Amino acid sequence: MHNGKLILVGAGPGDPELITVKGARVLSQAEVILYDALVDIELLGYAPPQVKKVFVGKRKGVHSFTQEAIHALIRQYTRQGKRVVRLKGGDPLVFARGFEEIAFARQHGIPVEVIPGISSATSLTALQQIPLTRRGISESFWVVTGTTEARQLSRDLELAARSSATVVVLMGVHQLPRIVGLYTELGQAEAPIAVIQNGSRANENMVVSTIRSIEQEVEEAGIGTPAILVIGAVVKLHPSWEVCQLVNELLKTVH
Amino acid sequence: MHNGKLILVGAGPGDPELITVKGARVLSQAEVILYDALVDIELLGYAPPQVKKVFVGKRKGVHSFTQEAIHALIRQYTRQGKRVVRLKGGDPLVFARGFEEIAFARQHGIPVEVIPGISSATSLTALQQIPLTRRGISESFWVVTGTTEARQLSRDLELAARSSATVVVLMGVHQLPRIVGLYTELGQAEAPIAVIQNGSRANENMVVSTIRSIEQEVEEAGIGTPAILVIGAVVKLHPSWEVCQLVNELLKTVH
Repeated sequence: MHNGKLILVGAGPGDPELITVKGARVLSQAEVILYDALVDIELLGYAPPQVKKVFVGKRKGVHSFTQEAIHALIRQYTRQGKRVVRLKGGDPLVFARGFEEIAFARQHGIPVEVIPGISSATSLTALQQIPLTRRGISESFWVVTGTTEARQLSRDLELAARSSATVVVLMGVHQLPRIVGLYTELGQAEAPIAVIQNGSRANENMVVSTIRSIEQEVEEAGIGTPAILVIGAVVKLHPSWEVCQLVNELLKTVH
Repeated sequence: MHNGKLILVGAGPGDPELITVKGARVLSQAEVILYDALVDIELLGYAPPQVKKVFVGKRKGVHSFTQEAIHALIRQYTRQGKRVVRLKGGDPLVFARGFEEIAFARQHGIPVEVIPGISSATSLTALQQIPLTRRGISESFWVVTGTTEARQLSRDLELAARSSATVVVLMGVHQLPRIVGLYTELGQAEAPIAVIQNGSRANENMVVSTIRSIEQEVEEAGIGTPAILVIGAVVKLHPSWEVCQLVNELLKTVH
C-alpha cells in the first residue's frame, strides 16, 4: 500500500513565467521531479532544495533516459509513496509522449493527474500578436508535427495545405524544404509564413516572409531548432509583414 | 504624452488556478481591468481592491458592452496613463476577438502586449487524460469554431471530417445535429466523440460516446453551453470508452 502519485505538468512554451499558477503550486509540493530538456531550470526553484530533480531529457540527439527508463523511475518513486511531478515543455499531451506515461501509470495502478500547460502551438503567435483565427480570414487552425515516426511529411499536412485553415507545424524547421515544395506545387508560393525559434525566450528569433523566400530568410537569420512554422493569411497581421513586402519589392527591382 | 498600455491576458479555460504566473502578476499590477463573462471572478482578487474592474462581457445573450464601447474604454483609460488589463477566457487570440483590440490599439498608438492563456482547445482533453495526438492514431489536430458569422457549419469542418486529424470544435454544442449529420454522411457514425461542458470547473460535465449516440447522451446528461466537442480515435483512450461500448452493446441486446 502506498500513496504515490504521478502528476504530469506542462511547463509552457519556454518563458518560465508562462507556467500556470497550479503548475507552480504542484512543483512546490513535489517530492521528486523528472524534467525534460525544453524546460527552463528556473522552474525547479519552485521546489524545496532537498527535492530530488532528475533530468530525463534529450540533449544533442542523445537520450539520457529511454522512455522505459523514465517509466522505471516513475514506478520506483511512486512505490516509495512519493508525489512524482513529470515536468514537460508545452502541454504534456500535445505532441509530447505524456500519454505513454499515463498508460504506464494506469497499467500499474498508479494514480495520475494532468495539469495542462500552454502549448507552443497557440502561444508563440499570440506573443507576436498574430491571431490564429480571424473573422473573414481564417475560421480554423490545424496543428501538425513536422517530425513523424517515418521521418516523412505527414499526409495530414497535404490536406491542411489545401484548406483555408491557419497551419501550425511544430518541430517543423527540418521539414521546411519539403513544406515549401508542397505549397509551391499547390500554387501557394506567395502564402505568408512565419518561423519562430525559441519562442517566448530571451533569445527568440523570428522571420516573417512568403513560402517563396522563407528558406533563404531562415538561413540568413540563422534559425534552427526548436522552431515552429505558421502558414496562412493571418501572418499578414504581424506588424513586420508590410516591411517584408517592401523588401521583396526592392529585391525584385534590384534583380 | 502618457504611459498608458493595453495588456491582453488569457485567463485560461475556467479553473482560476490555470492562469499563468505572468498573467497573475500582471493582474496584481493592473490599474484597470476589463473582463469577460467566461472569466472566474476569483482572478480579480489578484488586483488591489481599489483597482477599477469593469465587466464588459455578454450574459444570457445580451451584450453589456459592444466591441466599440470596449474600445472607447481602452482609449479613455490608456489616455489617462493607466495600465489596462483586458482579461479574456482561454487565450485572447484563439477564437476570441482579441485581435480587434490589438488593431484598435495600433491605430491609436497605444502600446500593447499579449500574455497568452491556456486555450480550452488543448487543455480540456488534457485534464481528461485524452491526448490530442498519439503516434499511430492521430498525427494532427484541427480546431474549428462551431459558430461562424453566417451561423452555418464552417466549410473547414467538412475538410477536417475527411482528415485523420483529431477535430476539436469550440462553441460547438448548438451545431451538434449538423455535425452528426456531416459525419454520418461520410460513413463515420461510429467515430468516437467527447463533449465537455464547463471544462476544468467544479461543475464540469462530460460524455464520451459515438457520433451515432451522442445527441441522445448529451440530452440525457443535460449538457449545454459552454462546451467543446472532440472527435477522433484518441477519444477511445479515455477510461470511460470501454464502459461506453459495453452500454451500447447492452442497448443493442435490449432493442
